[in-house]
Amino acid sequence: MADGERLIYLALGGAGEIGMNMYVYGYGRPGRERLIMVDCGVTFSNMDSSPGVDLIMADPHWVQARADRLEAIVITHAHEDHVGALGLLFPRLKAPVVYARRFTAAHAKLKMERAGQDTTLVHQVDPWPRTVQAGPFTIGFVPVSHSIPECSSIVIDTPAGRVVHSADFKIDPSPVVGEPFSPETFGEIGAQGVKALVCDSTNVFVEWPGRSEATLAGPIGELVREAKGMVVATTFASNVARLKTIAEAGQAAGRSVVVVGRAMKQMLATARTAEVLDSFPPTLDPQDALEMPRERLLVLATGSQGERRAAMAQFAAGSYQGMELKKGDMVLFSSRTIPGNELDVARVLNQLSERGVRVVDESDGRYHVSGHPNRPDLVTMHELLRPQIVVPNHGEHRHLVSHVELAQGAGRQGLVAANGAIVDLTGDEARVVDHVETGRIYLDGTELIGATDGVVRERVRMALRGHVAVSVIFDEEGRPLGGSWAEPRGLPDTDRYPDGIGGALEAAIDASLGRAKKAELANDDTVERLVVQASNRVCMDLLGKKPVVTVMISRLE
Amino acid sequence: MADGERLIYLALGGAGEIGMNMYVYGYGRPGRERLIMVDCGVTFSNMDSSPGVDLIMADPHWVQARADRLEAIVITHAHEDHVGALGLLFPRLKAPVVYARRFTAAHAKLKMERAGQDTTLVHQVDPWPRTVQAGPFTIGFVPVSHSIPECSSIVIDTPAGRVVHSADFKIDPSPVVGEPFSPETFGEIGAQGVKALVCDSTNVFVEWPGRSEATLAGPIGELVREAKGMVVATTFASNVARLKTIAEAGQAAGRSVVVVGRAMKQMLATARTAEVLDSFPPTLDPQDALEMPRERLLVLATGSQGERRAAMAQFAAGSYQGMELKKGDMVLFSSRTIPGNELDVARVLNQLSERGVRVVDESDGRYHVSGHPNRPDLVTMHELLRPQIVVPNHGEHRHLVSHVELAQGAGRQGLVAANGAIVDLTGDEARVVDHVETGRIYLDGTELIGATDGVVRERVRMALRGHVAVSVIFDEEGRPLGGSWAEPRGLPDTDRYPDGIGGALEAAIDASLGRAKKAELANDDTVERLVVQASNRVCMDLLGKKPVVTVMISRLE
Repeated sequence: MADGERLIYLALGGAGEIGMNMYVYGYGRPGRERLIMVDCGVTFSNMDSSPGVDLIMADPHWVQARADRLEAIVITHAHEDHVGALGLLFPRLKAPVVYARRFTAAHAKLKMERAGQDTTLVHQVDPWPRTVQAGPFTIGFVPVSHSIPECSSIVIDTPAGRVVHSADFKIDPSPVVGEPFSPETFGEIGAQGVKALVCDSTNVFVEWPGRSEATLAGPIGELVREAKGMVVATTFASNVARLKTIAEAGQAAGRSVVVVGRAMKQMLATARTAEVLDSFPPTLDPQDALEMPRERLLVLATGSQGERRAAMAQFAAGSYQGMELKKGDMVLFSSRTIPGNELDVARVLNQLSERGVRVVDESDGRYHVSGHPNRPDLVTMHELLRPQIVVPNHGEHRHLVSHVELAQGAGRQGLVAANGAIVDLTGDEARVVDHVETGRIYLDGTELIGATDGVVRERVRMALRGHVAVSVIFDEEGRPLGGSWAEPRGLPDTDRYPDGIGGALEAAIDASLGRAKKAELANDDTVERLVVQASNRVCMDLLGKKPVVTVMISRLE
Repeated sequence: MADGERLIYLALGGAGEIGMNMYVYGYGRPGRERLIMVDCGVTFSNMDSSPGVDLIMADPHWVQARADRLEAIVITHAHEDHVGALGLLFPRLKAPVVYARRFTAAHAKLKMERAGQDTTLVHQVDPWPRTVQAGPFTIGFVPVSHSIPECSSIVIDTPAGRVVHSADFKIDPSPVVGEPFSPETFGEIGAQGVKALVCDSTNVFVEWPGRSEATLAGPIGELVREAKGMVVATTFASNVARLKTIAEAGQAAGRSVVVVGRAMKQMLATARTAEVLDSFPPTLDPQDALEMPRERLLVLATGSQGERRAAMAQFAAGSYQGMELKKGDMVLFSSRTIPGNELDVARVLNQLSERGVRVVDESDGRYHVSGHPNRPDLVTMHELLRPQIVVPNHGEHRHLVSHVELAQGAGRQGLVAANGAIVDLTGDEARVVDHVETGRIYLDGTELIGATDGVVRERVRMALRGHVAVSVIFDEEGRPLGGSWAEPRGLPDTDRYPDGIGGALEAAIDASLGRAKKAELANDDTVERLVVQASNRVCMDLLGKKPVVTVMISRLE
């Protein structure tokens, strides 16, 4: 390690929130570090703060301004919150190469292709102990178990020492599909000396050890065996192991397996092509399923989060591809509800209940296990790697704090480094040396916009308060021609004014303009102000809310 | 009981959802039954389906059309989901009398007063075994424990037998504030013969018996005793017992108690006036609290659901009334997060965490207990009353189904009767004999509107897709005068068109009108259609979304 060089870590997304993972490592002289990015994910919008937004991603402007120093992008696994923004943000990053293992690389290429980017930049790498070089970084992909096939912890060797970036993982000796977690491998990696562990924190509040994916085969098998009518099961489309467990439960019970929903079919196809899925029960076409007795069917369907367009929501609302759920049928939600989706999921569960369908969810813990490390599993990881420093990531702020306390309790260094904190990992003590501004980018339809641009804030205001369009025409002498025209949208009407809210608005606007001086009427800004004030006053008086007002002033010449 | 008369039950709100409770009982000849309404509550809006809506309540049109037969409205307790709509809907119901016990009546009067209704119609009644008469109904208010003082189960005696309407309850021998649940009293009521129990179902999926409010004093006392800095605690303002437990924990730890937030102060004042609260530690004015060392303070604050304007959210965002939370302080959420509020609560928790504040919530079950009956408590209630028929209410559909299964498992009749189902309770077997249309009414600002009126749907559309106002002026000859004017709100701009999205819209609209025949331009509907089509096409092409379009056509004459 040359004098004056340093090793830095920076989260641009994912540290202080769950989702939208984007991490940067740098090595070199301050201000001239060579960089790698680990993961480039999205998070999902909600009506409260981002209505109409399609996807949310971290703003990579810090890297963008240093794109000439970006050596590579590394993708740990194929979940959307780790790879979903790759194609969309690639034009701003222009990395020379994207590294991922086979199944993950297939998804990364798909993201690049859909965004019109060069898919040949995605390089498929072999797992640890093989490594790839990216500037001063030697990078290894260590297989770990998770809730999707082929996740990798990343070993990053630098002249200043070794960092292990855990990525999402669970300690599962029998993950059903994909590679088990290998304590031996992590023990060896630890024995070689680890400076810093940057580590998943999502489940730090869960006090008991995580359960293996393999423990679900029994309970799910029993549930399906005892079911009488049709069985429809849902889980995350990417949880290929779960799909296999459920499908095999159906097969064992003498049922034909039907897979519906684009995301699920595509995930299974990719898993087969990438050879991470070696066996799966034969599946039946939905068309052919219509010919089968319903008690001989097991349907795997997308929509575990209550998504309105997914197969499960359509089953709940009536039917999907001709298949209809009835009294005596059973639905299994083998999935956790992501915070924010509670009402959507409850709506689907109740619609199914109204149809007389028996609904089984994960609330008693028998039919779902998490893909993340619980508190005791984090202890195991810390003990295997014995890092000098633990830097928690992938978690809300309170998760990071609790994870640091866990590390410190065992006599290790721990550091809370939320999005934007540049951490210098070079010396014996990790320190936050700088803060950079972070932000969010919205995919809004087909455009990328800044979260603070005001576009979405304006939509939120219209959602809460409605909109009034007002047209005012002035004649050649600068006098209002006829009356104003006010057109409300999303505002209740009122019988407290004879001509309703539109009439009340027009009367007030006309009166206000009628009182104005000629010079005032000649100024568009003044006219706009008068119209907005009159509109707000009327709406507050009659309706109790101030709408968004758009004023269109036309002048005849 | 005269020949040809019947006893009916009808839920207009609360059966098939949690919140918005509104139940009707009728007795008499079919179509001429005399009626009582039990509870008249609200539920809360959310951005997904009801942005900008202030309150949601059941549509009482079925009762409204029969208001001349309405004998009384009975209010079981003062929670908003039971009394919140009383004043707002009273003009449609015009009941001759509203019955409630003392503390509840005080709240009912407040609701009437705020809506400009006659408060003298609210009559304060004494508890069971005293009763009041309302037409053919003899009505008794049996004290039960709940998470607010002075809740009542309602005993409704009719010529066709006795119905017990449980209302919200828990089986708590030591509720800290208010009356304990009396198994003896319910046993006696049961021994006199109960035809039907209409019963709270919210916690039917919780397998263990409910815990007493009194069990919290130990854990909360210990938590506060060991706290180092300032302590701020929140819970539902109406949970007077919890406020008392927390305040006493502060007092015992040598802390001065400060109460902030309008709802909490008002609830404590009403509880004192109605004599349901006999003792409470002395409280300190927030102004005086600023003079105290922070480790000598315990602040009770509103905002347990992450409400943006409440005291807790303001503490999280910086300070409240001069008091500021710092590293070393502690915040206690002694409350459950109501489904739908998860993201708001998480936001507040993380803001607090970022300030270095230790946050303790109810996730390990030590600092909060529910006010509703869990599954074993429902069994106890069934066994005490031994009803012929159990009709579950106050729950989502799947709660009602599970509660019926519980009753049937013990050999009782059970009937799922969701909102709108008229249940005939007269004979030995309860039956659904009719369905009436139910609905929701929104308080939108100051107006009451139907949920299906389209006003709110239009706001949702603007939230998702933005709005474009277009003004087109035609001259005396019916030709477009100048160009059109398009003003987008809540739409991203684009660099894929030189003059941005506004320019692209105007060019497309002008081109479309330029191609139109003179006769088409003379017809406002045709012009509007052309403008909307052109706007949609441009926005889909350039932005990937179709906005709401308001077209204003002016014709010079």
